[in-house]
Amino acid sequence: MASDPNTRDPFEPAEEIEAHLESWAAAQRLPTNLTSAIRYSFLGAGKRLRPLLAWRCAEAVGASGRAGLDAGLAVELVHSFSLVHDDLPAMDNDDLRRGKPTLHIHAGEAMAVLAGDAMLALAFASIVERTADASLAVALGRELAIGTSSMIAGQVYDTLGGLPEGLGAIDRVKLIHDNKTGALITASCRMGAMLGLASIARPWQGARELGAITRFADAMGLMFQVVDDLIDVEQTSEHTGKRTSKDQVAGKQTYPGAIGVEQSKAEVGHLLATAVEALTPLGSPADPLRVLARLLSVRTK
Amino acid sequence: MASDPNTRDPFEPAEEIEAHLESWAAAQRLPTNLTSAIRYSFLGAGKRLRPLLAWRCAEAVGASGRAGLDAGLAVELVHSFSLVHDDLPAMDNDDLRRGKPTLHIHAGEAMAVLAGDAMLALAFASIVERTADASLAVALGRELAIGTSSMIAGQVYDTLGGLPEGLGAIDRVKLIHDNKTGALITASCRMGAMLGLASIARPWQGARELGAITRFADAMGLMFQVVDDLIDVEQTSEHTGKRTSKDQVAGKQTYPGAIGVEQSKAEVGHLLATAVEALTPLGSPADPLRVLARLLSVRTK
Repeated sequence: MASDPNTRDPFEPAEEIEAHLESWAAAQRLPTNLTSAIRYSFLGAGKRLRPLLAWRCAEAVGASGRAGLDAGLAVELVHSFSLVHDDLPAMDNDDLRRGKPTLHIHAGEAMAVLAGDAMLALAFASIVERTADASLAVALGRELAIGTSSMIAGQVYDTLGGLPEGLGAIDRVKLIHDNKTGALITASCRMGAMLGLASIARPWQGARELGAITRFADAMGLMFQVVDDLIDVEQTSEHTGKRTSKDQVAGKQTYPGAIGVEQSKAEVGHLLATAVEALTPLGSPADPLRVLARLLSVRTK
Repeated sequence: MASDPNTRDPFEPAEEIEAHLESWAAAQRLPTNLTSAIRYSFLGAGKRLRPLLAWRCAEAVGASGRAGLDAGLAVELVHSFSLVHDDLPAMDNDDLRRGKPTLHIHAGEAMAVLAGDAMLALAFASIVERTADASLAVALGRELAIGTSSMIAGQVYDTLGGLPEGLGAIDRVKLIHDNKTGALITASCRMGAMLGLASIARPWQGARELGAITRFADAMGLMFQVVDDLIDVEQTSEHTGKRTSKDQVAGKQTYPGAIGVEQSKAEVGHLLATAVEALTPLGSPADPLRVLARLLSVRTK
């Protein structure tokens, strides 16, 4: 841990990640209107947090970040599908996303349903098509499947109920966040680390590094969503490029709603410490993850 | 080919198939309301054509039909997801399916979107979780991905356009049908045959049997949809348990619309002959597939 973590820009791979997503999109052979809809919602916008995590987690286990590019692609497709479907009139009914009209506003509701479906199917397709080692492909597919079905379960909990009985307010909101947001962030990190380990001919199952990455990701994923809850309370739509103050309007379960703004901020601090602490065994290759976690803990959009 | 094909009931595995789907559903750990929605749309109804084809194709290559059960499960999950999403108000806006209210009528539109998403994700999950051999799992995942993304492309062509320019009426409708219906039927057949071949320790890639099954499936899948077009023109909702005469109302491209009812019936005959002919190299183990193809060519619902 010789280098100063603060000298590394964790977003430096952003351009290469975007080029990777773009090159995937250009290779798709689909109806032209479907391709346009996928490109509209998938390319040229978004924080690319999940691909960035996959890249940085591949790096953190000692590989090139590029080894994690395909993990980022698959997870970002799932993330993008979920945004398109969550924005639908029957769901959150959002008309603004990433600073532009949502897909169902731009291309109609039927296309938004189908383009979402297509991105979900193509996420799994990308894994089986692009992973040379079959055992690794199966393991990645399993991670993606767990992340995706947990995310959908979380969206059900969040918007339609179905939570186990007898949970207190904070346990309910933690269960929702862990599923809705955390599971796919953990999948990004683990898949990136697994591809990284495989690329340097290291065992990727049960590796000590993978345990550290998983602990980091679990804390980071929850922290990310608590920060999101705080942004919804404290920021404006103009600043964030998406509707804010909507959680309270929709009666959603949030950390500020369950434990208040100040305690939620303290929880962000705890989760950041847990995430950073988990990275200790990985040494300096994990520096960009440390910087990223810190930046995400103070983001305002 | 000693046995008389007509003495075998091709639907005999129906009960075992239903039990297999039921046992999969019982093992899912999801929000209770999501599980209910999936069970409502997935269990206890439907022809189970695709699982039946997977079973019979496993048998046709010399294995036990049971070897194809997991192929049937995965493909039926995809089929079921597609019905739920296609029925949505923004899509075909159907309120009747398999003789009961569609899922969005029964459980609301948001749940229908999410339950469909979940079934799609769980279809891929089922492959990676249930296939012991990693290379086979990857090959099955690839078949499922091609079948699913082609089906979605077909739905786009059918309802939103985007067809390549310069195609005549019959080529347009064939392209739609091959994608929307044929691709997933071919996936069922190929996946069943691949699982069958693997279960008897036969190579499942490039096998002569797999070639025969693919030719059978391609003809059968198109035939199935042409028969569907004819049912929509000639039958009543009371008889079929779903809305009829809707293709013409919606201005959809159909075989009867492109070449008339009589020529469509002749085409069913041609496709049946092609399908049955393709099975010749497989001998008597393919008898149930022959019977099934004949029955499907004359079905009226």
